Amino acid sequence: MTTGAPAELGALKQRMTELSDLGRIHSMLFWDQNTMMPPRGAAARADHSATLELISHGKLTDPVVGRLLDVLEPWADGEDPDADDVRLIAAVRRDHEKAVRVPAELAAEMSHADALGQQKWQEARAASDFSHFRDALALHVDLRHRYVACFDAPEHPYDVLLDDFEPGFTTAELRPILDTLRDALVDLVSANAGDGADARNNGVFSGPFEADDQRRAVMDVLEAVGFEADGWRLDPAPHPFAQSLGPTDVRITTRYDLHDFGVAHFSALHEFGHGLYEAGIPPELARSPLGQPVSLGIHESQSRLWENVVGRSRPFCAWVLPLLREHLGPGLRGVDAETFYRAVNSVQRSLIRVNADETTYNLHIVLRFELELALLEGALAVDDLPAAWNEGMARLLGVEVPDDASGVLQDVHWGAGLFGYFPTYTLGNLVAAQLWTRLQADLPEIEDQLGRGELGPLRDWLREHIHRHGRKYPPRELLARVTGDSLRPEPFLDYLRAKLADLA
Amino acid sequence: MTTGAPAELGALKQRMTELSDLGRIHSMLFWDQNTMMPPRGAAARADHSATLELISHGKLTDPVVGRLLDVLEPWADGEDPDADDVRLIAAVRRDHEKAVRVPAELAAEMSHADALGQQKWQEARAASDFSHFRDALALHVDLRHRYVACFDAPEHPYDVLLDDFEPGFTTAELRPILDTLRDALVDLVSANAGDGADARNNGVFSGPFEADDQRRAVMDVLEAVGFEADGWRLDPAPHPFAQSLGPTDVRITTRYDLHDFGVAHFSALHEFGHGLYEAGIPPELARSPLGQPVSLGIHESQSRLWENVVGRSRPFCAWVLPLLREHLGPGLRGVDAETFYRAVNSVQRSLIRVNADETTYNLHIVLRFELELALLEGALAVDDLPAAWNEGMARLLGVEVPDDASGVLQDVHWGAGLFGYFPTYTLGNLVAAQLWTRLQADLPEIEDQLGRGELGPLRDWLREHIHRHGRKYPPRELLARVTGDSLRPEPFLDYLRAKLADLA
Repeated sequence: MTTGAPAELGALKQRMTELSDLGRIHSMLFWDQNTMMPPRGAAARADHSATLELISHGKLTDPVVGRLLDVLEPWADGEDPDADDVRLIAAVRRDHEKAVRVPAELAAEMSHADALGQQKWQEARAASDFSHFRDALALHVDLRHRYVACFDAPEHPYDVLLDDFEPGFTTAELRPILDTLRDALVDLVSANAGDGADARNNGVFSGPFEADDQRRAVMDVLEAVGFEADGWRLDPAPHPFAQSLGPTDVRITTRYDLHDFGVAHFSALHEFGHGLYEAGIPPELARSPLGQPVSLGIHESQSRLWENVVGRSRPFCAWVLPLLREHLGPGLRGVDAETFYRAVNSVQRSLIRVNADETTYNLHIVLRFELELALLEGALAVDDLPAAWNEGMARLLGVEVPDDASGVLQDVHWGAGLFGYFPTYTLGNLVAAQLWTRLQADLPEIEDQLGRGELGPLRDWLREHIHRHGRKYPPRELLARVTGDSLRPEPFLDYLRAKLADLA
Repeated sequence: MTTGAPAELGALKQRMTELSDLGRIHSMLFWDQNTMMPPRGAAARADHSATLELISHGKLTDPVVGRLLDVLEPWADGEDPDADDVRLIAAVRRDHEKAVRVPAELAAEMSHADALGQQKWQEARAASDFSHFRDALALHVDLRHRYVACFDAPEHPYDVLLDDFEPGFTTAELRPILDTLRDALVDLVSANAGDGADARNNGVFSGPFEADDQRRAVMDVLEAVGFEADGWRLDPAPHPFAQSLGPTDVRITTRYDLHDFGVAHFSALHEFGHGLYEAGIPPELARSPLGQPVSLGIHESQSRLWENVVGRSRPFCAWVLPLLREHLGPGLRGVDAETFYRAVNSVQRSLIRVNADETTYNLHIVLRFELELALLEGALAVDDLPAAWNEGMARLLGVEVPDDASGVLQDVHWGAGLFGYFPTYTLGNLVAAQLWTRLQADLPEIEDQLGRGELGPLRDWLREHIHRHGRKYPPRELLARVTGDSLRPEPFLDYLRAKLADLA
């Protein structure tokens, strides 16, 4: 603790440690629900989740927290603005101010609906029938209206939701970025995509590959890039995600598709990127309000960097192929490194976001952003969502959606009440490109290192520049500190055009 | 809610619902720690566990709870003494009075030590070296001394610990029961045990049997007796246990020993008995203070009943053998039903409690009870525990302990700070025998039903007489209501002598 800090600082930190623990416990419940819980556990899980939220909310909104902040802020004004404690006070102020606006009952109701909605979504997806999910979604939308109404008239209601995932970021900033991307990407897809008849990844991952073989291949790759068996787990999940219960208890998930090893390979690299961020939080910050990733956009910059910028690069592809051959040998016979590299970078109009290539990916996000805005603005009724989805997929990607499971029900997010979340994937793609530009300048040997499977320097750079700060610097400031730049789509588009030119 | 109940009843129930949820969440953390958590997650888990305990303790000891009880008790005095609400008030009074005596810091410290101690125990057991566990155990003992000191001079300090697991039961009641058992069992072992050279279960389960085959066999048996795939889980764990996150989220564990399928078979039946009790709690009680098993003795009566009274009975053995053969065929070749029955009931002097037969089992408990008393009374130093263990095993069971892993480190309980717990296994054996006597009168066809694998009538009887009451009736009263009898060792000894005579 900073020398000469008021006693209130210790009191505030003590309270925030409890809150941090409760947040981790909530992550535990989420992880379990999505990997282990038997289906009929959902109702009780929703109750537990709501109770935890109610308690957390009560602790965060406690008037004592406000009074501690009132005492501490004048002191912080006289301290080094970059001191951890000063940043911690600012972070708690932000969280406290947001929380006090939301009645505890509403917070608990949202948490309850989020847990139950996930289960409804799973059932609906299994049945490929949106109607099973309709009521849960309508409740989510209604709850978001009530949530937004807790805040003083924002410029746009969507700003309130966006701010929960990307602090300080607004719809007005987001819209032109997505417009630029949409226009550029629709052209790039037209120029580079096949006729839609090609197998995914040109068939190099089509197998069939047994789940056990896939798992062994994924584990070998993960352990080579930095997964540590005594502090991480890998499990299957219908919709891959990452959670950490602490910097040395990191849980990532993946999915094994018999006829597409690309699903497991790239989702594992993606979730590894998330996990590495969580693992890189310094232990001394881990139970504090600064001991978490700063935003989902930054979080996604880490996952997308490992999945794409690294995982789909020519040198990494050349390095990883022999490793994969050890477990998937027969199915990869006749595939050489250049074929492999070209295959995993092929541009294809496809149905599923998480499997999309780098060129089409952000168009999937544009669609979700449009639909979320329309739902929130009341321009789109919940019942009309599947039709709007299908229309958007035809318009933006030129594909026809055969059923709800591979259409509107493909993602867990709306089931879990996560509105305002999807755009952070695109932010992640943009930030990853900006970080990579900087990283290449700092690590001129990076391409050669990737080719030798030497990931240590990359991990160290990310830890030094991103992970170790946790939530200390708001995302905008963090990006400026690392890259000297503000968030822009151009570096990503430059990166993409260079790769497409290389492949042409 | 009872008509005309004071408004305070709703307020009390609301508070207790939160507490019940927190308890379930704590079970989730425990289950995960013992099945899923990577080893380096232990430190954070201990923090989370302590925070949860601190919050639970704060809610239970809140002076408002005392004031609500003060208002409600005079009302309850005028109501039907068997009304759920009246019993609920009594249960909360008990919990509140116990909790207010214990400072929150001590409760949290114990919870923290319990989580860390489990990890230390796992490490020590893996290394078969008590010295790795010594400090954690010394801390546990010290914490128990501080815990006991919170209560007004009990007749015996051990009473305080015992009461946490078996409400209202005392050391003075327990000691003569264990003395009677010890004397009778030492004689029965002498008269019936082999020379110690026989393979466990006369070798019928010696295999080797692959873990996957064992798992399939166990699942087939479990599904036949009442495990429901959509509301239960079965996982491997180093020390089998059961937890429930709700009546439709029941988690049981087992262990696969390549050379002894008996470990998996009987531990799965044992944990199934626990799970069925948890699954039988009525949904409307599940989040209330009455929505949990009433005591560990009653809990163990359920597990031991399924493991032994059912699982080692002649008709069940005859029914289950063909089921096991489907997955373990070659290894069970030449074993007929009578051989099988005799094998799983063979009396053997052995090292491991959980694998012990019904005749030797309670001698393992006698040893643990002696040692816990000695530790608590200060008559035994922590450092001298392994030697005392080995001496006791020679004296009571006539076996020599080759190493700590199969000696003093075999059970998780002391690692998790569970002192006063072991005697409830013996209580469970005694209660199971008393229940079975009554059950045979109510279900005269039970033997035939077991022989046909018809477990429905048995499940229904247990649900009706035990499970559905949750924690409504204290254990002594519950036993009297069901059997008209008080806790006695004689029905168990009669049951045992009859079986040994049958086998002779």
